[in-house]
Order: sequence, then structure tokens, then C-alpha cells
Amino acid sequence: MEGGKFHRKTFDRIDPERRAMILRVAMTEFASKGFAATGINDLARKAGISIGSLYSYFASKEDLYLAVIDMGSDTLERELSEIDPSAGFFSCLEALVRKARHAADRYPELNQIYLDSTTQGLSALAARLSNRLEAVTAKLYRRLFAAGQASGELRPDIDPGYAAFCLDNLIVMLQFSYSSDYYRDRMRIMVGVGDGEEVDEDKLVSCVLAMARGAFGAFR
Amino acid sequence: MEGGKFHRKTFDRIDPERRAMILRVAMTEFASKGFAATGINDLARKAGISIGSLYSYFASKEDLYLAVIDMGSDTLERELSEIDPSAGFFSCLEALVRKARHAADRYPELNQIYLDSTTQGLSALAARLSNRLEAVTAKLYRRLFAAGQASGELRPDIDPGYAAFCLDNLIVMLQFSYSSDYYRDRMRIMVGVGDGEEVDEDKLVSCVLAMARGAFGAFR
Repeated sequence: MEGGKFHRKTFDRIDPERRAMILRVAMTEFASKGFAATGINDLARKAGISIGSLYSYFASKEDLYLAVIDMGSDTLERELSEIDPSAGFFSCLEALVRKARHAADRYPELNQIYLDSTTQGLSALAARLSNRLEAVTAKLYRRLFAAGQASGELRPDIDPGYAAFCLDNLIVMLQFSYSSDYYRDRMRIMVGVGDGEEVDEDKLVSCVLAMARGAFGAFR
Repeated sequence: MEGGKFHRKTFDRIDPERRAMILRVAMTEFASKGFAATGINDLARKAGISIGSLYSYFASKEDLYLAVIDMGSDTLERELSEIDPSAGFFSCLEALVRKARHAADRYPELNQIYLDSTTQGLSALAARLSNRLEAVTAKLYRRLFAAGQASGELRPDIDPGYAAFCLDNLIVMLQFSYSSDYYRDRMRIMVGVGDGEEVDEDKLVSCVLAMARGAFGAFR
């Protein structure tokens, strides 16, 4: 874990495998139950450590939750750093959409925690996050739009901020649709697939790209 | 309240104003704290009724939560019934986007509860919702796309289900961005507005419409 804004120094001193295990157990608990319903005693028991030890590593359940989200931000930052803006706007966008889709399979729990952290019940807590996750994403979009407008691939008259917001909304909901049971059901209802039928992922990706191309591309 | 799948018969027998008051208090509590952190004793106290009375109206906290969501589905159904598909696809879509934006101001609590109900921690509960809310929305999109393709306003080769899913993702996130503190901050970061500056709502609506028109419109 990088940073360490949310844990106490004692946590840095323990065995790295033990550190990773504690964060993994916390991630699993928070993901399946949500912040409010997760019991810190139960969590310590599942991690095989005493509640005293846990509080010597993290000042509160809130701090532990924020440490897990920070781990998620590290993951996102690492994944996004693989996108190369020089590859062209729509090619990067396709890579981004496919990455989001796969992230839902690779890190379902981080996605579930992210969704949980956006609810109004946790708004006080969210204020402590300093929005690192969103800032990292926004920065990538800025670069992609600047490169796309400079190369003439994108229309010169679009406002990159508004466009990035709408695009990312599509990507976030796609990710939720593959990591939360509720949104999975919703997707099936909206798309209109029957029992035993699967949603066609390529069609989804194409639809997102078509919307971006149609609105922002210099040529349709 | 229509239906009444989630309350006991005793609830139908009490004064309508008292019924509305209890649901209003429950809505406020669930919206600000989320399902898991809402205490049923606290809720009864705020409504000025005994916990015994509350349990005579609703079998569980879960049933009360589902009754509030059902009230939200009634509201959505009423709002959506005002959309007239014969007005043309993009004109209806603009009305829908603007309705979503205003619903965030008019019913912030229903939006906050909806967001809460989509988290993985509440997935067992969400299964009891039978997705009425999503089914109502999906049905409207089916009608809008059918009318738009029949009139030639929309491209004949688009798949209405996938298109509806993507469009509704934009609308849902727009609504969250005006009803959850987290998403409000995220929107400001993505759009890139500075302190004291406001996000331009008309630009947001235009962006959503441009994406729809570019991807689904027969003419750009």
C-alpha cells in the first residue's frame, strides 16, 4: 500500500503478507456488507487478529475503509497509466471501456466499495477521500481530449469537461452493471434479454463508442 | 400509497395524514443515513409513534424501506406518464433529461434511497423489489424507440435495448450528480469548474442530447 494517510505507523511495521491479508479481509467485508453494516469485531475475527491489534493499525473503522478505497485508487491509477494518449482518442476510449468492463471482473469488491462510498449516508466520510479517484480519471480525460482536439480527430467546438463527464458516466454505469447485483438486473431489463440469454458486451462497447463518436468526432 | 405489498393491513386503517407522515419520516431517515445505519427505534421516536405501533404497520425495517421505494416507483411512474411519445424522440428525450434534473431537486431523498438500494450490501433486499422502477423506465424507452424508428427519426439499424440502457445510464448519473454529495463533487471535478463557479446545466443537457443524436439519429 502506498501513501498511508489512513493507517498508523504500527501497520507499516508488520509483515507485508499480514498487511495485505488484513486489507483483503476488510475489502471483502466492506464490499459484501457495506460500510455501515460491517462490524469491526467480526472483521478482526475473520482476519484472525485481536480487536486491540486492529485499532493499533487503524484509528477507526472509517480509517480502515478509507485505506481500502485508497488501495482502489492505486489500482485505478495503475490501470489508467497503461492508456497511451498518442494512440488516438477513440482507440484510447475503446481501451478504457474494455478496461472498465474487465475491472468489474478483476476487482468486483473495489467496485462494490466505490458504489457504497458514493451513497448519501456516507457523505461525511466521502469528504475525507479528497476525490483522488475522480481527479486521476479527470486528468486522463483532459489529456485525451486535448490530444484529440489537437490532432483534429475531435470537433474543436466541444467542451472537454462536459464531454468527459458524460463519457465517464457511461463507463461508471457499465462497471456497476457488472459488479452489483442490482445494476446487473437493471441492465438485463433495460437491454431486454430473456432468461438464459446474455447481454452482448461487444454491442455495449459499440454503443458507448457510437455515442462518443457521434457527438465528439470530427467525422461521423 | 398504491399497492401496499409491503405494509400490514393495520397501516391502511390509520389516518391518511398519519400514514403519509410515517412514510415521510422513514424517507428522510433512510435517505440521510442509508438502510443499514437507520435505527428503527430512532425512526419511531422521530415519527412520534411507539415501536409497537410501527411493527404493527410494517413487519420489519426491510418492509418499511421497500414501502418507501414503492412510493418512489409511484412517483417515477406518474412523472414518466407525462411524456408523450408522439411528440418525437429527441423532444421526448430532452423532456426526460430535464425531468430527471428536476426530480433530483424535487425528490432528493427518493434519489438518495434509490442509490442506496443499488449497493451490493443490499442485494438480498433489492431482489424483493421485483425491479418495478426499472421495468417502468424500460417500457417507456421501448415505446420511444419504436415510435422514433417507425417515423424515420432514428436509424433503423440500432438496437433499442442497448441504446436505451446507455441513454438511461447518462440520465441516472445526471440525477445522482444533483442528489448525492459525492457525485456532485465528482461532477465538478470532471467538468472542471472552479470554486464559486457553477456547472452549466444547459451544456450538460446538450451534451446528453448530442450523444443520443449522434449515435441514434437518422440525421446528425
